[in-house]
Amino acid sequence: MAGEPLVVGIDFGTLSGRAVVVRVRDGAELGSAVHEFPHAVIERELPATGERLPADWALQEPEDWLEVLRTAVPAAVADAGVDAAEVIGIAIDFTASTPLPTLADGTPLCALEEFRARPHAYAKLWKHHAAQEQADRINALAEEREEAWLPRYGGRISSEWEFAKALQILEEDPEVYDAMDRFVEGADWIVWQLCGAETRNACTAGYKGIFQDGAFPSADYLAGLDERFAGFVAEKLEGPPLAPLGARVGSLTAQAAAWTGLPEGIAVAAANVDAHVTAPAAQVTGPGQMLMVMGTSTCHIMSADSVAEVPGMCGAVLGGIVPGLWGFEAGQSGVGDIFAWFVDNAVPPRYHEAAAERGVDVHTHLSELAGEQQVGAHGLVALDWNNGNRSVLVDHLLSGLIVGLKLSTRAEDIYRALIEATAFGTRTIIEAFERAGIEVRELFVAGGLLKNPVIMQIYADVTRRALHLIDSEQGPALGSAMHAAVAAGAYPDIHAAAAAMGKVRRDVYRPDEDRAARYDRLYEHYVRLHDHFGRGGDDVMHALRRADQEAPVL
Amino acid sequence: MAGEPLVVGIDFGTLSGRAVVVRVRDGAELGSAVHEFPHAVIERELPATGERLPADWALQEPEDWLEVLRTAVPAAVADAGVDAAEVIGIAIDFTASTPLPTLADGTPLCALEEFRARPHAYAKLWKHHAAQEQADRINALAEEREEAWLPRYGGRISSEWEFAKALQILEEDPEVYDAMDRFVEGADWIVWQLCGAETRNACTAGYKGIFQDGAFPSADYLAGLDERFAGFVAEKLEGPPLAPLGARVGSLTAQAAAWTGLPEGIAVAAANVDAHVTAPAAQVTGPGQMLMVMGTSTCHIMSADSVAEVPGMCGAVLGGIVPGLWGFEAGQSGVGDIFAWFVDNAVPPRYHEAAAERGVDVHTHLSELAGEQQVGAHGLVALDWNNGNRSVLVDHLLSGLIVGLKLSTRAEDIYRALIEATAFGTRTIIEAFERAGIEVRELFVAGGLLKNPVIMQIYADVTRRALHLIDSEQGPALGSAMHAAVAAGAYPDIHAAAAAMGKVRRDVYRPDEDRAARYDRLYEHYVRLHDHFGRGGDDVMHALRRADQEAPVL
Repeated sequence: MAGEPLVVGIDFGTLSGRAVVVRVRDGAELGSAVHEFPHAVIERELPATGERLPADWALQEPEDWLEVLRTAVPAAVADAGVDAAEVIGIAIDFTASTPLPTLADGTPLCALEEFRARPHAYAKLWKHHAAQEQADRINALAEEREEAWLPRYGGRISSEWEFAKALQILEEDPEVYDAMDRFVEGADWIVWQLCGAETRNACTAGYKGIFQDGAFPSADYLAGLDERFAGFVAEKLEGPPLAPLGARVGSLTAQAAAWTGLPEGIAVAAANVDAHVTAPAAQVTGPGQMLMVMGTSTCHIMSADSVAEVPGMCGAVLGGIVPGLWGFEAGQSGVGDIFAWFVDNAVPPRYHEAAAERGVDVHTHLSELAGEQQVGAHGLVALDWNNGNRSVLVDHLLSGLIVGLKLSTRAEDIYRALIEATAFGTRTIIEAFERAGIEVRELFVAGGLLKNPVIMQIYADVTRRALHLIDSEQGPALGSAMHAAVAAGAYPDIHAAAAAMGKVRRDVYRPDEDRAARYDRLYEHYVRLHDHFGRGGDDVMHALRRADQEAPVL
Repeated sequence: MAGEPLVVGIDFGTLSGRAVVVRVRDGAELGSAVHEFPHAVIERELPATGERLPADWALQEPEDWLEVLRTAVPAAVADAGVDAAEVIGIAIDFTASTPLPTLADGTPLCALEEFRARPHAYAKLWKHHAAQEQADRINALAEEREEAWLPRYGGRISSEWEFAKALQILEEDPEVYDAMDRFVEGADWIVWQLCGAETRNACTAGYKGIFQDGAFPSADYLAGLDERFAGFVAEKLEGPPLAPLGARVGSLTAQAAAWTGLPEGIAVAAANVDAHVTAPAAQVTGPGQMLMVMGTSTCHIMSADSVAEVPGMCGAVLGGIVPGLWGFEAGQSGVGDIFAWFVDNAVPPRYHEAAAERGVDVHTHLSELAGEQQVGAHGLVALDWNNGNRSVLVDHLLSGLIVGLKLSTRAEDIYRALIEATAFGTRTIIEAFERAGIEVRELFVAGGLLKNPVIMQIYADVTRRALHLIDSEQGPALGSAMHAAVAAGAYPDIHAAAAAMGKVRRDVYRPDEDRAARYDRLYEHYVRLHDHFGRGGDDVMHALRRADQEAPVL
């Protein structure tokens, strides 16, 4: 094996970074290592001062990310038992949108003594939801002005994205805003640290930075939000042309080589978003193939030859997943999170005891009980909005609903209904694509939930599609490694890299006609509830959020 | 105290009979005893044969009831430490409708060797729900013929009542039907055993036997249901005039005196229904006063000077609660049952552990946590139909719903929302009365739930009414004892008996204006959901029941 070219992929998640050493020839994952972020997610108080953060804030400390380069990369190489000299390229993927304010040289403002105590000087993690007010105004003005980019995002941009977060800084801490020379995604910032040059990758800029048809939103539009915001793009965002995915954006600097133990000068690829980069790892690089990355939430990723405006999608971006194709992203904001909420908050002791006796976790125990049921036997339908709806309604304030509860309803009944609800949610997304003319021929699955056969079978039956499962435990890092291989010139493009290095088990779950027919009938109920509560028939979910907020603190 | 006149009241419940010895002068409860029915509720299989019973069946063995006379009455007298010779009267109340087929002399068919193996020969407990098909046809024909009695029952009679149960016997076991000379309520059958004469009390006949304006349904109408059913009333039901409540229907026979140890010849009063008889025990004997008997379900009882047709009530019966007044009954089919379902099926281990550590039950622990919340803080609204809706929709096939679920929703949030849902259900009933012109000025509470201060305060706030609580642990038996006192001539009427013997604590819970105003807003949501799912806007609840039934058995 000695002398075979290797690449390193690094996946920066919400709580940790994972480095994987991969063989270029066949994608074999030779070694890996994880580094947990010491500060994890900064949600309650700022570590530097103890200052209490407002609700919905979520920050990160960029120094935590650098530690991944210094510790996880050498550890992965050691774990692989290979010679670091064989590594020919490195690439990373990152959560998004997770932007941070920096000086012109890339120094994070939060690293400066004078801004250490200022919350807005830190990186805003994707799940920082405190810029909703800004997002609302961004959407309202864009709609009013009929900005051409708005339909590319299903008619609504998210409070999680760059512009809402930047506008929040401007309005809440103008000194930080003035001091920041650059507003850069964590993905691109890490690449900057690796190769010494600022870049912006096409994926994050397209999906989270409102970059469409070769431009960010206009100064004129931005001035309409706030006069002081007019120069945001020109002064703090724009730079060299966007870097296509798989492009070599530079070479590993001496400093980064010292951090990582990798050879100086090897290829550094454009960064990527964690969900999107998983597609080639599952050999999903062509039109008609949808990848579902199913974990706490689900991200739906697919490519098409042409653009279409799909209502309620998260984004359509040219080259956003595969260069040359339009990449589409949709999502469900709560999936595994809902099941976890249920197990933690609504499952009585006897199930915990039975699971412990059997030596399995409660999810496994409940899944097996739920799996024994016939479709419809529990008499329940649920809406999967316990964490809001990301697609197709794009409404964070929606909430979960269960109907059909009886005195005989058991925990496994509700558990199954919740699984089914998320499967129905996926079906609404597939149908929205197909109504917009984008055929969804094949379904691929990555993410932790693929290990649960009951969930998988329900998804196959509800969607009437066979499920192909990624055959890697570290899809994002493997996908990054594949982009590193392309950037290093080992493959002509990501299609070739995916064919050689990607890993998928096809047709692991196939739909059953009888169950699918029964699900068709339950799905009709889901759709009617979905439209009634999600499209204004009954605004109770929004009203309940207001009641919640109006209740005085005790 | 020696020589003071006493009475005995016996409350026949679903699982046991309770006898109480009461002092006539002031209602003091001097002693009591309970006898559990050995056969409890016969739901799964017939004890005589092991035959499996179909779904929704619920039978009782009348011999179990007689045991109450033989054991609980002497035990109560012993517990009171009084001389049985001082007892001047006895009265009973019973679940309803719980009819049984008998020979002309009162012998239950199930006591005959030849019918021992026939399920239809046994008493059908109130919660026997297997005659729904018959009830549906009874209602359809009554509606078609515009039977004058139908509106008195809110436009729909229940499958729990006498006629549906009798028709089921006729259709499913005509031999039992032919062999039965009388079809008699358990209430009246026990009185028959006490005084040796068959009677029918005005309360059970009115509420459960469709006796209105001096008559049962006509032979012509009955023939429309089934030719063979035409003679049901004339042959198996009708007898002497109905006995008004508090009337002396006879004297204790020598045999019954031997069973009970009470003096032969003392007054035996007309029987009563358990919920209704509780009203005078709480001093509820006048118009404008509603009694809520709150336990596993809630029964709403009130009297008025004139009759009104209140949509979805269980019944309006002249003299049904208090002679001379129109008595109204409404109900919620799941209240404490829903809270019990929740605690058994949806509360995670840490609450059970915390309650055990504190030495309280889980209901108490959850109630206290729920009680700390501001109105609306949990952001939830529920429909309280987990056991169907008895009033005002009269639809057993409706089911429970929760909306507003979030990843932050906790067990105490849902618990509180369920309590609130039942309070909203009561408010819909109060409003239905008031829309029909029957004012509900005062609310009285009896039943086990009155011990829960959180539930009580929520009801006060939701209904904007002070709550008066019965001050007796054995309301039905006390109410029966009061009727025994009237029957024995110790008081001229039930009003006088209630004033002297009844027990109530007034204004124990008062509504808070701020909370009531917040509940008004939540209630608007409840009403909209109630009407949408209960009045045909979305028929999903019925469809889910069908899906449930269609699912093949595994």
